[in-house]
Amino acid sequence: MKIAFLGLGNMGGPMALNLHRAGHDLTGYDLSPVACKRLAAEGLRIAASTLEAVAGAEVVISMLPASQHVEDLYLGNGGPGLLESLSAGTLVIDSSTIASATSIKVAKAAAPRKIAIIDAPVSGGTGGAVAGTLTFMVGGAQADFERARPLLEKMGANIFHAGPAGAGQAANICNNMLLGVLMIGTSEALALGVANGLDPKVLSEIMRRSSGGNWALEKYNPLPGVMDKVPSSNGYAGGFGTDLMLKDLGLAQENAIATRTPTLLGGLARNVFAAHSLAGNGALDFSSVIQPLLRAKK
Amino acid sequence: MKIAFLGLGNMGGPMALNLHRAGHDLTGYDLSPVACKRLAAEGLRIAASTLEAVAGAEVVISMLPASQHVEDLYLGNGGPGLLESLSAGTLVIDSSTIASATSIKVAKAAAPRKIAIIDAPVSGGTGGAVAGTLTFMVGGAQADFERARPLLEKMGANIFHAGPAGAGQAANICNNMLLGVLMIGTSEALALGVANGLDPKVLSEIMRRSSGGNWALEKYNPLPGVMDKVPSSNGYAGGFGTDLMLKDLGLAQENAIATRTPTLLGGLARNVFAAHSLAGNGALDFSSVIQPLLRAKK
Amino acid sequence: MKIAFLGLGNMGGPMALNLHRAGHDLTGYDLSPVACKRLAAEGLRIAASTLEAVAGAEVVISMLPASQHVEDLYLGNGGPGLLESLSAGTLVIDSSTIASATSIKVAKAAAPRKIAIIDAPVSGGTGGAVAGTLTFMVGGAQADFERARPLLEKMGANIFHAGPAGAGQAANICNNMLLGVLMIGTSEALALGVANGLDPKVLSEIMRRSSGGNWALEKYNPLPGVMDKVPSSNGYAGGFGTDLMLKDLGLAQENAIATRTPTLLGGLARNVFAAHSLAGNGALDFSSVIQPLLRAKK
Amino acid sequence: MKIAFLGLGNMGGPMALNLHRAGHDLTGYDLSPVACKRLAAEGLRIAASTLEAVAGAEVVISMLPASQHVEDLYLGNGGPGLLESLSAGTLVIDSSTIASATSIKVAKAAAPRKIAIIDAPVSGGTGGAVAGTLTFMVGGAQADFERARPLLEKMGANIFHAGPAGAGQAANICNNMLLGVLMIGTSEALALGVANGLDPKVLSEIMRRSSGGNWALEKYNPLPGVMDKVPSSNGYAGGFGTDLMLKDLGLAQENAIATRTPTLLGGLARNVFAAHSLAGNGALDFSSVIQPLLRAKK
Repeated sequence: MKIAFLGLGNMGGPMALNLHRAGHDLTGYDLSPVACKRLAAEGLRIAASTLEAVAGAEVVISMLPASQHVEDLYLGNGGPGLLESLSAGTLVIDSSTIASATSIKVAKAAAPRKIAIIDAPVSGGTGGAVAGTLTFMVGGAQADFERARPLLEKMGANIFHAGPAGAGQAANICNNMLLGVLMIGTSEALALGVANGLDPKVLSEIMRRSSGGNWALEKYNPLPGVMDKVPSSNGYAGGFGTDLMLKDLGLAQENAIATRTPTLLGGLARNVFAAHSLAGNGALDFSSVIQPLLRAKK
Repeated sequence: MKIAFLGLGNMGGPMALNLHRAGHDLTGYDLSPVACKRLAAEGLRIAASTLEAVAGAEVVISMLPASQHVEDLYLGNGGPGLLESLSAGTLVIDSSTIASATSIKVAKAAAPRKIAIIDAPVSGGTGGAVAGTLTFMVGGAQADFERARPLLEKMGANIFHAGPAGAGQAANICNNMLLGVLMIGTSEALALGVANGLDPKVLSEIMRRSSGGNWALEKYNPLPGVMDKVPSSNGYAGGFGTDLMLKDLGLAQENAIATRTPTLLGGLARNVFAAHSLAGNGALDFSSVIQPLLRAKK
Repeated sequence: MKIAFLGLGNMGGPMALNLHRAGHDLTGYDLSPVACKRLAAEGLRIAASTLEAVAGAEVVISMLPASQHVEDLYLGNGGPGLLESLSAGTLVIDSSTIASATSIKVAKAAAPRKIAIIDAPVSGGTGGAVAGTLTFMVGGAQADFERARPLLEKMGANIFHAGPAGAGQAANICNNMLLGVLMIGTSEALALGVANGLDPKVLSEIMRRSSGGNWALEKYNPLPGVMDKVPSSNGYAGGFGTDLMLKDLGLAQENAIATRTPTLLGGLARNVFAAHSLAGNGALDFSSVIQPLLRAKK
Repeated sequence: MKIAFLGLGNMGGPMALNLHRAGHDLTGYDLSPVACKRLAAEGLRIAASTLEAVAGAEVVISMLPASQHVEDLYLGNGGPGLLESLSAGTLVIDSSTIASATSIKVAKAAAPRKIAIIDAPVSGGTGGAVAGTLTFMVGGAQADFERARPLLEKMGANIFHAGPAGAGQAANICNNMLLGVLMIGTSEALALGVANGLDPKVLSEIMRRSSGGNWALEKYNPLPGVMDKVPSSNGYAGGFGTDLMLKDLGLAQENAIATRTPTLLGGLARNVFAAHSLAGNGALDFSSVIQPLLRAKK
């Protein structure tokens, strides 16, 4: 089975490598020559263009930055889109994190051409991409999901079928909106405890085992020194960047605006991360959002 | 060992009964004759007054509604407080959920009289009180905590020592502020998913196993029909009332104001629950906060 | 001078009539036959189609519901857009409240055809449209603004030139985001005063003349009975509907997301109005947002 | 008429001087010898103690930092309060900005002693105190208000009777909560406009004359360079400090908690100013809250 992998950045690169190392016949392409060179050095076959990459491919995987890139790639922008170059029967797996509406639009355009397409955004960050432990949330037909699953399992540890086209994107923004809220909420609770003289390790353990328990306390404590091997204990390097969280919270709010859904804490979370990014923390891990809540020690 | 139990309401009543049934020599008292009668019917010995209840008691446990009641009881209000009637060596366990500052104030007044006192607020609601599965968060000296522990274990399943006097209250409001935030956050994520046509059971399961995972998704899903034996599947009856959550979030904000701590989501959560209560939902379980976010089905 | 007026709804209808009554040679068109019939009854000449309406027109004015309608009208949607049918030299005045980015996109497409275009969204509601007292916030070249001004003055009382293409839309959403914030803020201040037993007329007057002074206290008090001839004293009928405010706050948040601007209160205001609309108040005047903050009198 | 003035800080000092310069027979006192010395240098008579200051006084004016100071002064703290030293018929004017509940408590204690007392907090900042242009919001009996008015008019330009005891404090926190909200809201609208390339002077003028019009745009534009002689054009020096706004917003939230009033934007405003203060801006004028919203110019 020939696979084309389009978009070889911080996420797409290691994902492609995991498929390659699992023995798949993979051809990659990225607009950035630097990215292409880096992957070539790892042994990946690199095409000279998108069209060369997809030539003869049964499966096309894409990992692009934003809705506009996905729409331009598949539907075209002042020229023919990639859908016109794919044969009937091709399976397209778009792992970009984009608007649900865009995924649905592309899926609708693919249907009459008998191209199977699923939206399969991921969570887990670059660490998960490298380790092959990503979570995939998939939207599309059940049969297409089953066809993609063996490939997704080479790149991820948790593979969920969320529903029809667009449902993967929708589930992803719901989850990430909640993650943004609980990271800030956890940060505030820890900051309030510290301001009251509590030992943050003790407080973290109490809340983790009580009704405040959540993923941040379990796996990703934002307060430096409470947990090993998390970004907060590594100067907030690595992990899931503030600007990526900001992008996802923006997608969630755009969806909430379009569906007229009230999301008071979700909306506030976006604006808190926007302020955090504007203060110069965009490249730090998103758990650094606790830092402005802490009083400097005297 | 003689124990006095003051405050036999919805929480104190079943807590006292659990101690009684475990074989302890307990005398109870409550200002409400109705509460006294109810507990007497369950076999509890009832005193005619606070002073009669504590006569000869080595341990005094109190479970009162608010800071002012605790201060009035122990320090007096235009008359002598209960501390003046207790012998040196008495252990006082105050399980009321009140301001940390009040617990510290009472502890300071108790110290010169050699009365040991711990603040031991609980989480787990009336269900936990009846089942004896409460979580205790304790502030006070280590020795006093150890002395109280065997009694607390008759009423609760998780007993945490949070730190010195007041630390139990502080840990409790931190946890409950976080709980308030994650319940609203979870509700918004579910509502946004439903507005996008996702199956709430599928979305709940995806988020529970992903980075949005938290206690609400694990134990207390707010959307009717997703989980059995939770308030949302029982018309939001029982559980932890909206007005109790509102009280705890008010305590958290008062603490944040006093310590000048920014808690943007915690503050918004208080105001969301205030609006929810004002709309007539004060007596419903706090997970009913999802209801105003859902579009009525046509 | 021949003028075409496209979009004869609650806003466009009375605006067109004001131009008509001022003696201008006007032809109107709306997709809704009902709207066309209503305006015809008032004496307006009605065309059978958009193309018929603009035939020979030196000025085209449009008043449409949302960005997509404007883009489809001028740029086309699967067919040629209206720009292709207009002569060089035509002046287009788009008074729709839409995304600034859409206005800029249409203006860029008009430029090579020598079609002058300004974005000229309005505030003032249907009352202002009928009375001819609207506020226009205009984006476009200075010369085009001056050319449009005599017409705008027939429909409005305040005509502002905000800057180049798109600036009218940007100024409008900034103003309306601020309006949404200050209406909720004023409502909360009044509700808090009432909860403290203050006389709302006295409190309104104090704040109006102090540092809390703002347009809502000056012209549009949300509390029934404080001010005459405002929606709050008329069951919240008329005025500026909750759903229109919700739309504008959505445009503001979409812009804040695109420009990565933190707008914490502006974002919260959108979500508060989304909840208010979902509770069934979408058709009421937006000042009804005070109602859920008031405790029912006993 | 002999007047005692207690509390000669940044506000009380210039207020006392304005009364002194108007020819009143004034004796001042402050716990700080520095403050006493400064006022003595201006010609004010300074007493050696509170009791000496009030000896023979018909009117006592106090200007203290917080609720606890006022309660300790008048009701005592482990000793007799000042009320016990005042003769029947004395008029007490407390201009401190404190909790409404404290003003009511002190007024209740004063009543049986026939001491007339009004709460008369001010807005207008140190500039207004020096210039004698403060706004007074007064709670108390009408007769006591009338008796105080001639004195208040020497210190202020706007004198409002808000209602019975405590109403001055309540009106003041309502106004200041609204001020906090509209200052942040105005800052966000200006920041969004700047991010869209609008000229801030043009946008300020448009909003000032439209439905976004408010005191901040009229008198106190937060964006440097838009308005002369305001703190924003003077490095945010002088004016009304961030920490004072934070205190007032804390009083407002404590009141909202006690009265169970939802104040979503008011609560968020407190937390935004708490974050702004924690970031090191506590001593800057509160309009500096716009600064973190602006993208640094390249």
